[in-house]
Amino acid sequence: MSSAGLEKLRMTGAGRAIAALTSGGDAQGMNAAIRAVTRMGIYVGAKVYLVYEGYQGLVDGGDNIKLANWQSVTNIIQLGGTVIGSARCKAFTTREGRLAAAFNLVKRGISNLCVCGGDGSLTGANIFRAEWSGLLEELVQKGRITAETAQKHGHLNIVGLVGSIDNDFCGTDMTIGADSALNRITEIIDAITTTATSHQRTFVLEVMGRHCGYLALVSALASGADWLFIPEAPPEDGWEELMCARLEESRSKGCRLNIIIIAEGAISRSGEAITSNYIKDLVVSRLGYDTRVTVLGHVQRGGTPSAFDRVLSSKLGVEAVVALLEATPDTPACVIGLSGNQAVRLPLVEAVEMTKEVQRAMNEKRFEEAIQLRGRSFENNWSIYKLLAYQKPAAVQSEHSIAILNVGAPAAGMNAAVRSAVRVALASGHRVYIVNDGFEGLAKGADLRSFYWTLFPA
Amino acid sequence: MSSAGLEKLRMTGAGRAIAALTSGGDAQGMNAAIRAVTRMGIYVGAKVYLVYEGYQGLVDGGDNIKLANWQSVTNIIQLGGTVIGSARCKAFTTREGRLAAAFNLVKRGISNLCVCGGDGSLTGANIFRAEWSGLLEELVQKGRITAETAQKHGHLNIVGLVGSIDNDFCGTDMTIGADSALNRITEIIDAITTTATSHQRTFVLEVMGRHCGYLALVSALASGADWLFIPEAPPEDGWEELMCARLEESRSKGCRLNIIIIAEGAISRSGEAITSNYIKDLVVSRLGYDTRVTVLGHVQRGGTPSAFDRVLSSKLGVEAVVALLEATPDTPACVIGLSGNQAVRLPLVEAVEMTKEVQRAMNEKRFEEAIQLRGRSFENNWSIYKLLAYQKPAAVQSEHSIAILNVGAPAAGMNAAVRSAVRVALASGHRVYIVNDGFEGLAKGADLRSFYWTLFPA
Amino acid sequence: MSSAGLEKLRMTGAGRAIAALTSGGDAQGMNAAIRAVTRMGIYVGAKVYLVYEGYQGLVDGGDNIKLANWQSVTNIIQLGGTVIGSARCKAFTTREGRLAAAFNLVKRGISNLCVCGGDGSLTGANIFRAEWSGLLEELVQKGRITAETAQKHGHLNIVGLVGSIDNDFCGTDMTIGADSALNRITEIIDAITTTATSHQRTFVLEVMGRHCGYLALVSALASGADWLFIPEAPPEDGWEELMCARLEESRSKGCRLNIIIIAEGAISRSGEAITSNYIKDLVVSRLGYDTRVTVLGHVQRGGTPSAFDRVLSSKLGVEAVVALLEATPDTPACVIGLSGNQAVRLPLVEAVEMTKEVQRAMNEKRFEEAIQLRGRSFENNWSIYKLLAYQKPAAVQSEHSIAILNVGAPAAGMNAAVRSAVRVALASGHRVYIVNDGFEGLAKGADLRSFYWTLFPA
Amino acid sequence: MSSAGLEKLRMTGAGRAIAALTSGGDAQGMNAAIRAVTRMGIYVGAKVYLVYEGYQGLVDGGDNIKLANWQSVTNIIQLGGTVIGSARCKAFTTREGRLAAAFNLVKRGISNLCVCGGDGSLTGANIFRAEWSGLLEELVQKGRITAETAQKHGHLNIVGLVGSIDNDFCGTDMTIGADSALNRITEIIDAITTTATSHQRTFVLEVMGRHCGYLALVSALASGADWLFIPEAPPEDGWEELMCARLEESRSKGCRLNIIIIAEGAISRSGEAITSNYIKDLVVSRLGYDTRVTVLGHVQRGGTPSAFDRVLSSKLGVEAVVALLEATPDTPACVIGLSGNQAVRLPLVEAVEMTKEVQRAMNEKRFEEAIQLRGRSFENNWSIYKLLAYQKPAAVQSEHSIAILNVGAPAAGMNAAVRSAVRVALASGHRVYIVNDGFEGLAKGADLRSFYWTLFPA
Repeated sequence: MSSAGLEKLRMTGAGRAIAALTSGGDAQGMNAAIRAVTRMGIYVGAKVYLVYEGYQGLVDGGDNIKLANWQSVTNIIQLGGTVIGSARCKAFTTREGRLAAAFNLVKRGISNLCVCGGDGSLTGANIFRAEWSGLLEELVQKGRITAETAQKHGHLNIVGLVGSIDNDFCGTDMTIGADSALNRITEIIDAITTTATSHQRTFVLEVMGRHCGYLALVSALASGADWLFIPEAPPEDGWEELMCARLEESRSKGCRLNIIIIAEGAISRSGEAITSNYIKDLVVSRLGYDTRVTVLGHVQRGGTPSAFDRVLSSKLGVEAVVALLEATPDTPACVIGLSGNQAVRLPLVEAVEMTKEVQRAMNEKRFEEAIQLRGRSFENNWSIYKLLAYQKPAAVQSEHSIAILNVGAPAAGMNAAVRSAVRVALASGHRVYIVNDGFEGLAKGADLRSFYWTLFPA
Repeated sequence: MSSAGLEKLRMTGAGRAIAALTSGGDAQGMNAAIRAVTRMGIYVGAKVYLVYEGYQGLVDGGDNIKLANWQSVTNIIQLGGTVIGSARCKAFTTREGRLAAAFNLVKRGISNLCVCGGDGSLTGANIFRAEWSGLLEELVQKGRITAETAQKHGHLNIVGLVGSIDNDFCGTDMTIGADSALNRITEIIDAITTTATSHQRTFVLEVMGRHCGYLALVSALASGADWLFIPEAPPEDGWEELMCARLEESRSKGCRLNIIIIAEGAISRSGEAITSNYIKDLVVSRLGYDTRVTVLGHVQRGGTPSAFDRVLSSKLGVEAVVALLEATPDTPACVIGLSGNQAVRLPLVEAVEMTKEVQRAMNEKRFEEAIQLRGRSFENNWSIYKLLAYQKPAAVQSEHSIAILNVGAPAAGMNAAVRSAVRVALASGHRVYIVNDGFEGLAKGADLRSFYWTLFPA
Repeated sequence: MSSAGLEKLRMTGAGRAIAALTSGGDAQGMNAAIRAVTRMGIYVGAKVYLVYEGYQGLVDGGDNIKLANWQSVTNIIQLGGTVIGSARCKAFTTREGRLAAAFNLVKRGISNLCVCGGDGSLTGANIFRAEWSGLLEELVQKGRITAETAQKHGHLNIVGLVGSIDNDFCGTDMTIGADSALNRITEIIDAITTTATSHQRTFVLEVMGRHCGYLALVSALASGADWLFIPEAPPEDGWEELMCARLEESRSKGCRLNIIIIAEGAISRSGEAITSNYIKDLVVSRLGYDTRVTVLGHVQRGGTPSAFDRVLSSKLGVEAVVALLEATPDTPACVIGLSGNQAVRLPLVEAVEMTKEVQRAMNEKRFEEAIQLRGRSFENNWSIYKLLAYQKPAAVQSEHSIAILNVGAPAAGMNAAVRSAVRVALASGHRVYIVNDGFEGLAKGADLRSFYWTLFPA
Repeated sequence: MSSAGLEKLRMTGAGRAIAALTSGGDAQGMNAAIRAVTRMGIYVGAKVYLVYEGYQGLVDGGDNIKLANWQSVTNIIQLGGTVIGSARCKAFTTREGRLAAAFNLVKRGISNLCVCGGDGSLTGANIFRAEWSGLLEELVQKGRITAETAQKHGHLNIVGLVGSIDNDFCGTDMTIGADSALNRITEIIDAITTTATSHQRTFVLEVMGRHCGYLALVSALASGADWLFIPEAPPEDGWEELMCARLEESRSKGCRLNIIIIAEGAISRSGEAITSNYIKDLVVSRLGYDTRVTVLGHVQRGGTPSAFDRVLSSKLGVEAVVALLEATPDTPACVIGLSGNQAVRLPLVEAVEMTKEVQRAMNEKRFEEAIQLRGRSFENNWSIYKLLAYQKPAAVQSEHSIAILNVGAPAAGMNAAVRSAVRVALASGHRVYIVNDGFEGLAKGADLRSFYWTLFPA
């Protein structure tokens, strides 16, 4: 945003009132977001209200909805959690609750709402927006507000900020809190590494992520973990052998410890949960290694936000206010996401829908698609993890190169014969070339393709 | 130790060989201890051998027992865990294993052994010392060593350093690793506090300590936890009500979170385990609070040692070498402990025995004694925790003072009547005075005693 | 990169040899980069050599250039600094030194070089590449290598990875180490905040960045600092008054501390250095506040890498190997940068040139351009910092709106009169409208423009 | 303190009022102390007032002196700095200021004062106590308080808690904040180690301690620093050569970095300041090593308190209240210190006097005495640092042993001859024995003493 652009914004918020709340699981950086929304709101001339205890505060009203000034958000950028609280709220899932919430907003002249939370919280906000005019009508009928008030605030503008340590929301590169959670996880893995090394132990570390493997994936990449379980990429059947073989190989080459990282929501190809204790028992029974399980738990969402999360949240919070100012009844509700280093607006409904689609893909065992739906960065991280975590068997172990070509009339079974010959040759470490078009192809030298048999797990 | 004293020590180790090993659970500071033993050993003119992988390395010999020089221990003081490894060793619990160990030592001319580990490891060292001459005799008989060698190294000097994050060893103020573990625990509690506050949650934190409540006690004190479970002081029967009442009271006064700390080995008065999940279920069912369990696990023994642990280990390691030099076949094996700020020598057998006595006291439900056996500092910490954790009901809540005196002939039931009257009066917040010797006592004004009915749990 | 794409890469490196070195100031994440280059190199079938002590190792050869295997880079991803060392190297700035370096590479069959360092180091690599064939020729003439060898390795492929905590390289969103340095800085600011608050102190914090204000800017944003000095945006003349007024205002509103962040290379509009001590003296003399300077120094590049830096370096390192494999004598040397979440290849020469252009812009006092050249993200951060750091005077403080229009024949001084009227009105908080085209314009209602007089510093 | 003992204390504070303040440089743990004093005060039935902004708040009164309740100090134990503020106060150094302070206390019925601060702050408190009755008299004369009030509060009880990161107070093992500062310093040294190692650099680290070398000494011990400068033990003349030789030797044995730690107040034998820049220039000019200075500054007193400091402060705070309750006009003012693991009372005046005596000893160049006055633990740490930091030249390098004895009539110059012979022999690495009483002594074999020529610096 240019200086001129910013200057133009000033006063555009005059007469407007914005309410901001945090909802769902807390995430480091939420306070920086609240600070940015508050101060940007004041900058553009609007009144900013902070809603305490999430949607519950919206329903309860009273002291839970407080007018903020510039100082209200001083010295909170460095704090973990959310200073305005968050809570599960059953009431808001009912129309009655939302009616109370609408009343609490409209009587303060508020028709702009910024919600920082996960996909559930944002979906809730969107329902509220859709119902808004109906809710106001009901309030008019009940004589709780005047028709004039209802008309003046006839439309509810909403904007979402994704606060979620899981980085599980499609369309944004990062959600608020994910970077801090990753730093917390890597600190703990680093700490555990010292004790694991001392004892030649295997550690099974369970990190958060019931539906999304992001934290597990990136922390495995960042710690060079030996094996990784994420819901998006269940291991091939027979993984137990492969994993134990890999751990054994790593030990045989001098490694004094093994780290296995597992997301809470890890599943097998058939969709059944893989638990950290199952893995531990497996390692103990097959390899006899001293193995421990550590469930990282809420430490992951605790502590101070990282520099990245503070900056990200500030950036998104500023954009959220601009989006609210520019919203019209016709623009769809939006979520502020990060694309590259820029704050961007995503259509809320589509982004939520796409996020749910990942889950559907996993439920329906379209795992490759699930990974793709997570986005290019997730996919890349997954590739890079696999590339760097363990050494693949040498593609070629012998000096022999074998060319295979079909000669004469085609016959049933030829393909199977070739396939079998290729496998055997590759397994013996030979290099295998496939010649198309028989001797003629060989003479031309075209289309000589080499084959490698992958032992890649995915 | 004075400069002159130190100078005198130089060369007293000439011709001696010292082996050092770490055993049992690793603890932050073990590397500082190994560094101190190695360098002090070299300073006094001795050869120092580092034994890798604990007792297993002693049994296996070969490359597991390496001559160290000054640089061998450079840049390890800041590392967590133990760079020379630690391991459980079944072999050393057999005479055969110890025979192999004795051979591996004696053939290198080593008859001084410094063991850094827990009470089990130190006990093992003492058995080894007692058997030493017999083991050498057997080695002579088997022709593996000469009688001359056996005679030259006829006595095994041992010294212990208590490496244990649990601070569970009697006679020393602190064991190696306990301070670092405490810092790790408080960091994690601080982090969890931010998320707990955001959600008004109750957290049940399980810290290490299967037999000793030190870590739980001190971390509760350091974090101002609402409630604490340690094996040495099981809660009074009916604690469930009391605890829930306390949590509720704290919330009613504006606290947004509750922290409950539980040692792994927490038990009830009847000796049954109290688990973190039992507590969680209790809070959820009785109070309906959003409650989470976090088991801290091996993070507690991970990471870099604190400044205190580095200094403590250096101090103890230096003294260990001096103790080995001054040991004679007649001096009992000793452990180097901390008393005040000074390294002191404790008789190994008695210290281990006293440590076991605490366990016996707990087994036999002599809980007050158990706390006393833990030492004055433990006792004090326990008192201070209780003083500062929660507000005791005001001793006096009313303006009325009531004096109770017995008049006339004594009768059965008088004591019970007085007791009951006192209780009722106190419960109503009145101040109660007891007058001895009836009206005569009242006239004299002597011996007017006030009573307070304690709600103190212990 | 797809699985299939990766699979195709396997063996394309067969027969190749890659050398990797770190140069210039160390940065957290360099080890992760070295690990990624090594393992990806092995994956594609190449031999990978690690060069110790930067370019000096290249010149010295011998044990400084070691063939690596998969295990060589195990357990280094979590380490700070660079395990293969870095050093200033005068020798490599001479042709003689580069001749020695060329010999050391070519005799090992190495003609692929990956350099992780700052822009100076990368420029050096590019000079080396340009001279390569000449150097080989000279080696042939001197009889040190055969003409055959020279021909076989006739071209040197180079690829750069930008390791620099300063994030001072154009074309990449982030350089290796910058995120970790930011986290270190914010940790320290957070710590200092506790003591500053206790004493109502002002802290002047000097962070690294002799030529680039990135670290200062982002840490100011992340900590909500009161004032910020960066070389790209020197303060307007008279900033001393403005700054002191701002600090005073903040205190008057209840803030107990002030944080001022200054980049090492901070300058005034006239290009002279602004030092942290100058600022301190200013605050003390004008405001009498207890003020302290803290120079963060090398702590900023110390300690373990953040999760982000580990992942970034892994990503870039993998791509670096692919770029080397795909390089031809005709492709220009490239640097691997980050764009969004993706690794991208930037032409080395242009990127270095653009980086230098920023410096030129600053030297020539084209400061706005300097900020733009730093990239959109830098510019945004700068805007957001200013938006959120301090409250701008209310654009409108009165209820009056004044319209100004010119009537009658134009006369000299009319513009000045209007300008003056606008300023006075705005200063009094009135809203001012400018009517174009006199009464006619007023009647039409078109082009009514409102004016705000900005107090914005930049 | 036993449960019974504690129970007895309850209500003994009824009718009493205690004020608590923090003064001087803030220290981590001060909040834990304030919490303990407040809650213990409430426990014993007293009213507790918190004084904000140190002595200035006492002088200013009004809202700076607030009645506290149990919740006032909830959730502060984990915070760094002091939540009730601290400030330099010129006013309190004047009788007028103290008169105002006395009035502010006495009108609230407060005649018990707990001061947490350094030796200057405690001395100020003692002056206040001595003047108290005179101040009250003056207030009576001026008609500001009644004679009755003056009589009722005729004596001011004071108790001190030493809050000082420097651990510079005689009589207590540890001052509040020192352990946290040490942990902060070692964390920073650990971080710098990674970058120093990468570049083979020498780092000169300046830590706090203008008059006391505690932090420098213990952090040198905890980090294995190569050289150490503390005010209590200035290096021998010619130290420049010795230091450079030591650094060089360490590098020659493979060390990639050197760490030199210097206390702010480091001096030479002649009492002149040794600065970190002087050392840097020395290393650069003599050895040509890449050398950097890092001044740690206020980070040392920043951040969260360590577990140790929280427990220490809680312990001392509880005892402070007990000491106030037990104080009489005749008991001298006391400071609560730590001895071993126990809180103990030290006479304030003597403790301050002894602390000043250390400074006098340094001023008068009685350096050995200065170290002794710091206490046995300081002395031990100093010995151990020297023992473990660098390798002393081998006491014996040859296999030869030489005995020296005097035979025949004594003659002038014999002692000099012996001395010279001993030195030459020792310098050649021989072992030297001194025989008393000529051949007769040799025959008896008594009193054979071996000599070692120390190269020990101190």
